[in-house]
Amino acid sequence: MQALLFDGQLRLVHDYPEPSALPGEAIIRPHLIGICNTDIEITRGYKGFKGVLGHEFVGTVVACQNTSWVGRRVVGEINAACGGCTTCLRGDASHCPERTTLGIKGRDGAMAELFSLPVACLHAVPDDVPDAAAVFTEPLAAALEILEQSHLRPTDRVAIVGDGKLGLLCAQALRLPGCEVVVVGRHAERGELLHAQGIAMMPAEAIRPGAAVDQFRSPGLPIAWSQSFDVVVDCTGQPGGLALARRLVRPRGRLILKSTFAGDSTLDLSAVAVDEVRLIGSRCGPFAPALRLLARGLIATEPLIAGRFALRDGQNAFRAAAGQLKILLEV
Amino acid sequence: MQALLFDGQLRLVHDYPEPSALPGEAIIRPHLIGICNTDIEITRGYKGFKGVLGHEFVGTVVACQNTSWVGRRVVGEINAACGGCTTCLRGDASHCPERTTLGIKGRDGAMAELFSLPVACLHAVPDDVPDAAAVFTEPLAAALEILEQSHLRPTDRVAIVGDGKLGLLCAQALRLPGCEVVVVGRHAERGELLHAQGIAMMPAEAIRPGAAVDQFRSPGLPIAWSQSFDVVVDCTGQPGGLALARRLVRPRGRLILKSTFAGDSTLDLSAVAVDEVRLIGSRCGPFAPALRLLARGLIATEPLIAGRFALRDGQNAFRAAAGQLKILLEV
Repeated sequence: MQALLFDGQLRLVHDYPEPSALPGEAIIRPHLIGICNTDIEITRGYKGFKGVLGHEFVGTVVACQNTSWVGRRVVGEINAACGGCTTCLRGDASHCPERTTLGIKGRDGAMAELFSLPVACLHAVPDDVPDAAAVFTEPLAAALEILEQSHLRPTDRVAIVGDGKLGLLCAQALRLPGCEVVVVGRHAERGELLHAQGIAMMPAEAIRPGAAVDQFRSPGLPIAWSQSFDVVVDCTGQPGGLALARRLVRPRGRLILKSTFAGDSTLDLSAVAVDEVRLIGSRCGPFAPALRLLARGLIATEPLIAGRFALRDGQNAFRAAAGQLKILLEV
Repeated sequence: MQALLFDGQLRLVHDYPEPSALPGEAIIRPHLIGICNTDIEITRGYKGFKGVLGHEFVGTVVACQNTSWVGRRVVGEINAACGGCTTCLRGDASHCPERTTLGIKGRDGAMAELFSLPVACLHAVPDDVPDAAAVFTEPLAAALEILEQSHLRPTDRVAIVGDGKLGLLCAQALRLPGCEVVVVGRHAERGELLHAQGIAMMPAEAIRPGAAVDQFRSPGLPIAWSQSFDVVVDCTGQPGGLALARRLVRPRGRLILKSTFAGDSTLDLSAVAVDEVRLIGSRCGPFAPALRLLARGLIATEPLIAGRFALRDGQNAFRAAAGQLKILLEV
């Protein structure tokens, strides 16, 4: 079968072996697969993964011992846990040290004509959620993980640093409890999508220490940007994003770390201690609420799609994806 | 001026003295005033209040020392705090022991041709929020107070007991972070509004201990009603609501108390201790997020309006309001 493989370089393979249905697993034919920043980072060395890429998908189960799944349209959680270790038994299966992760660690991903995933990872997609929305379930769940981990109050001021795919999903998710949300980004043209949802956008260039433009007009009240946000989310996917996010968070505020990339970051941890800032790492999130929000039309996904490519055109798709909104692969 | 007065009985007065503009206060001409369950309870003896009723309003400032407010369309927080006591200084102004409360304690309310409120309580209404939505700011803020006080996770199962005005607003607010929300109510006809927002509704009669119908089908999984909800909100406004809410909450779950009524409730506090249930009283909430959500159309208010009456027809309006959705008074 065709598969988009990374083994030091990204290439399309035409004779990749088809997966066989192990007990407890399902064979899935994907309809759409999203290219995530993590996929791009993997092709730059992140995680040292070699295999078929792809972890954001919507597809149909074509084979499974539990035949009730066959023919169903599904999305899937990407962490396949052992289910028996102490981490799993305390309810933290997504942190199982024995886990494989779809297209990221120890398990071939979804960018192929077929792939396999444990039934325990699957979620049936409601009929009123089209494929082009369902393929965003995984990144939307990652955005919701912030609300799952941390108490965001409706009166909290929230800054999202980064106006990429994940940043725009995080902004849409974190506005839902009523929070005032500002996206700090470099793509002015993405402001329209945000403004339609009552989310403000500020150019990243405006946020420099001591800059005269270091001001943001909150309703009725001018508030300095520096150290003025209760919650700041770094969605830049780049080492520089953390420093910018750190400048925005108030003393005793929370800094949510969503970026995954190859390489180290530097941070003045002593100043973090003095300001009593809480740093909170955040990764995969809950699928069921993500599907509920998509079914109710509370998250706009169509404006996040930058283009579609056939799987066989995957190399061009990856070239097009860098710095763009969501590129989808069609199988 | 005309005013709707409660002084042991509810009556329309035609020669009520007009309020005078004290320093720091604004004189407001209301456009619409909502009748709240608390207003009805006051006419039954709750709080022992005597004076002009009404605390849910949208109106126009007609006089104010700070002339920038004059002519502006406003809603207003109902607690007028002293601003100088230790409670106020620690940021809990809505709990100021010296506070007056609009139409509830020590301060005439909005059901009149004019009334007064401190400027500190006012919020300008965005142009894109019509009067008929803005008048819901106060009860929506009270619903958001739950999200302000308590960490509701997107994966939490939430039950709202009571399908009245406040219950339907709480259900709409608590669904926003992605939570699965079920309303337990007695008015099947209100299910349509809820279903349109992905909120389930169950008849209160179905929830009896040991009943064969004591089941609710969560997606893919039958779960017993009893003690199965992470968060339960009592919005019934009646003593019996608490017992029903208590039956629904899981061990270590949270029971949010939103009902205000005249009279005591009984509860097995020993069983509450054994089950480690947290009881959380909840009252007034933040206006700014409520206005943000109304401006974005995330809360449906039109279906909550059961009727409109002229202020001079206020006694009939109160008669019509009992057990109904929102009745509005027009001035």
